[in-house]
Amino acid sequence: MNENVLGIVAGILTSAAMLPQLIKVLKEKNADDISWVMLLVLISGLSLWVWYGFLQDELPIILSNSFSVLLNITLLICCIIYKKSK
Amino acid sequence: MNENVLGIVAGILTSAAMLPQLIKVLKEKNADDISWVMLLVLISGLSLWVWYGFLQDELPIILSNSFSVLLNITLLICCIIYKKSK
Repeated sequence: MNENVLGIVAGILTSAAMLPQLIKVLKEKNADDISWVMLLVLISGLSLWVWYGFLQDELPIILSNSFSVLLNITLLICCIIYKKSK
Repeated sequence: MNENVLGIVAGILTSAAMLPQLIKVLKEKNADDISWVMLLVLISGLSLWVWYGFLQDELPIILSNSFSVLLNITLLICCIIYKKSK
């Protein structure tokens, strides 16, 4: 299999696995179960993967990790909004 | 920065971000909040990343995703054990 296709499929699966969490938080307007520290560590790690993708010039790594960064930043913003509104 | 060092740091951060979830499940002996489907999708995606790492011959990708596969398989086993024991 072409490694770019493989990387993109892998990226879609690992990104898709995070979506239910975001949907749950948005639906319930509740992010109490989510740790800020964990999100910050995850966002730092994913950003470094994006950087790594640019250094190695690998599009699947750049795309999937950028999507995950956006998704986790949205989660972090939800955490801040929902915790403040209580 | 050397891209291997960058990849390994990125891998440590994204793997470390999953550890609190596993520790919480092991401590509380409760995995009700975790979705099997999400874990299976995640394990499939991470396994494809390991395969991608082998194709591209990139050690940071192989190591960090293998660790994440192991961690999520452990979570899946916990889900099965704790749900059965109820």
